[in-house]
Amino acid sequence: MALAPTARTFRSPVVEAKGWLAGLSFTPDRPLIDAGQAAPSDPPPEALRRVIAEAALRDDSAHQYGAVLGLGPLREELAANISATYGGRVSAAQLAITSGANHAFCATLASLAGPGDEVILPTPWYFNHKMWLDMAQIGTVPLPCGTDLLPDPEQAAALITERTRAIVLVTPNNPTGAEYPPETLAAFRDLARARGLALIVDETYRDFTATPGAPHGLFEDPDWDDTLIHIYSFSKSFRLMGHRVGAVATSPARLAEIEKFIDTVTICPTPLGQMAALWGLRNLAQWVASQRDEVMTRQAAMRAAAPALAGEGWRLAGLGGFFAWIEHPFATDATTVAQALAREAAVLALPGTFFSPEGDATGRAALRVAFANLDAPRIAQLAARLCDFKGV
Amino acid sequence: MALAPTARTFRSPVVEAKGWLAGLSFTPDRPLIDAGQAAPSDPPPEALRRVIAEAALRDDSAHQYGAVLGLGPLREELAANISATYGGRVSAAQLAITSGANHAFCATLASLAGPGDEVILPTPWYFNHKMWLDMAQIGTVPLPCGTDLLPDPEQAAALITERTRAIVLVTPNNPTGAEYPPETLAAFRDLARARGLALIVDETYRDFTATPGAPHGLFEDPDWDDTLIHIYSFSKSFRLMGHRVGAVATSPARLAEIEKFIDTVTICPTPLGQMAALWGLRNLAQWVASQRDEVMTRQAAMRAAAPALAGEGWRLAGLGGFFAWIEHPFATDATTVAQALAREAAVLALPGTFFSPEGDATGRAALRVAFANLDAPRIAQLAARLCDFKGV
Repeated sequence: MALAPTARTFRSPVVEAKGWLAGLSFTPDRPLIDAGQAAPSDPPPEALRRVIAEAALRDDSAHQYGAVLGLGPLREELAANISATYGGRVSAAQLAITSGANHAFCATLASLAGPGDEVILPTPWYFNHKMWLDMAQIGTVPLPCGTDLLPDPEQAAALITERTRAIVLVTPNNPTGAEYPPETLAAFRDLARARGLALIVDETYRDFTATPGAPHGLFEDPDWDDTLIHIYSFSKSFRLMGHRVGAVATSPARLAEIEKFIDTVTICPTPLGQMAALWGLRNLAQWVASQRDEVMTRQAAMRAAAPALAGEGWRLAGLGGFFAWIEHPFATDATTVAQALAREAAVLALPGTFFSPEGDATGRAALRVAFANLDAPRIAQLAARLCDFKGV
Repeated sequence: MALAPTARTFRSPVVEAKGWLAGLSFTPDRPLIDAGQAAPSDPPPEALRRVIAEAALRDDSAHQYGAVLGLGPLREELAANISATYGGRVSAAQLAITSGANHAFCATLASLAGPGDEVILPTPWYFNHKMWLDMAQIGTVPLPCGTDLLPDPEQAAALITERTRAIVLVTPNNPTGAEYPPETLAAFRDLARARGLALIVDETYRDFTATPGAPHGLFEDPDWDDTLIHIYSFSKSFRLMGHRVGAVATSPARLAEIEKFIDTVTICPTPLGQMAALWGLRNLAQWVASQRDEVMTRQAAMRAAAPALAGEGWRLAGLGGFFAWIEHPFATDATTVAQALAREAAVLALPGTFFSPEGDATGRAALRVAFANLDAPRIAQLAARLCDFKGV
């Protein structure tokens, strides 16, 4: 009797962590500081909400099935946006819209690898990637990042076997915040191409990099789609989390395979969310830039707290995108620390153990702090609570 | 090198059939009659659209991630609705909201069966079920329905092996329209329970049965959730196709497994669609009843056309829900007939081959006509075009 796919993986860490809060109560003078999930807590801008409301009222197609691979105008607009942002050449025929970036990842993997195949995943990893690989019975080959939190292409090369199908990178990284340098990405692309693998680059936090401009040059290569698979999300940039809109850029041939998965699992992404994303791409560039500036302000607040934290033994190991990766000063493992923080310091952060192979020392020693929802004073407060926390 | 999951299955039949229309042109005096997809072409009622618009404008949670298993109030309301409709006992803890009924099916299977396991599927089958089983490397064991288009529990019993994990029924059936009698469903439940299998009953077309009232008594059994898994969709009843809202009723233990799949693949169903479904459950019972009456009028129009069709050798073999299952009079297989119909008769209907194992005689001989989008005069026109069609 085969083990069912879901029995091969763990409970969702976000669900698990929310469970820790059950039974806890927080006081108005010391409310919970929730740095658990990387989701903007504010709604989309008023104008975008009006676009959604108008479409719901007046556009019948907002309520009907749309094309499996997404609405044509959105694919066109995103192709133009990526081409301009990266100085490359991406066409609508190389793009599909998905029900979020996770959905893009699962559909992509379903077109790439089956039970017994292997995928190389730098650690710490994004847990939903690991969960899908588990459920699909694809072997996860961990590639431990260095102290700079970057994966090393040479180390990756040594992990490739005849079963390897893909290397997966996330930049800016979830959970560490690390922004991978263009040279690192190019080296991974060269490695993947030379070995006949796919290079999947999840750029969900693309619009929140420290350096504005093209995050890498991979799309400049006219043959990019023989190797590169790019994943994007509209959730963070336009605050459309609940509408579930993401995207994947790859070859038209792979999209024909991905179409089978989407048709079977969700039929299509929501037209309403896609209409919102389309309007956002056409009208919100300036607004997204200001959101990025605000995230940078928050990053700066996080950085400013580093010396005080260091005084109490905490180390800010990574910072970028929506995340800080912070090493804690205790001998106990991060799960115990995170639970105690929720209980005693009214701080919710996810333990590094959620992002690491079982028993991994790096994961046991760190916490992921999703700070992007917290303004600068709140971040200072968060840091103060960590400093005051004396362990378990 | 393992075959990738998507390479194990076929192109989406809906996508395939839409491809047939490319390059065809239709004239205003002889427009295309589209009986291809089972989706209401009209939008949801005005009041429901206003609810969606208002939520988009004023309710921040409409844009945020919701709970993985769905919004609490919707789970409560649907539990009450199912309990009342079926005269049974279903609690919110036994219900999850999904991104459509397909999503419910995939998540359910992921909690049940892995590569090498088997699932019994009556034929003709719903193609997206077959596609998921293919991608998941679950063996599909076809259970051919009789001339009454019903599956036989005794025949099913003979197909059970030690690898069998579930039996999947769809009632009212897609593609044949057959409504399974309560006794048939009870017999399948007894069989599944006795053999330790899950019985999955997809009731997407529940609100459009010929006989109003409880479609079966399975929920009256206080222990229903040890065997029965019920799937539902809000797409047809409230015309919310594009919002992707469905549901699955099963045991809380299985929901904990299903939660892993949903969290990984789509994170959550859209809050906006769920708010619409909740309002619909609370306010649209009467409206849904009138929709059902209209579908019955259309069924009657389809039935009225049967004698004329029979005169030309067509046989109305099944009728119910949104579908008619019609045997064609030609020696050629249904795919060729359906393509010629699109080209020469401006009628789009899906061939039975899309719903059947390769080479299956029943599938080669029939067409699925999704008539629910067509009013009675249009249905008469459709029948007339079939009668005039002289084959390929």
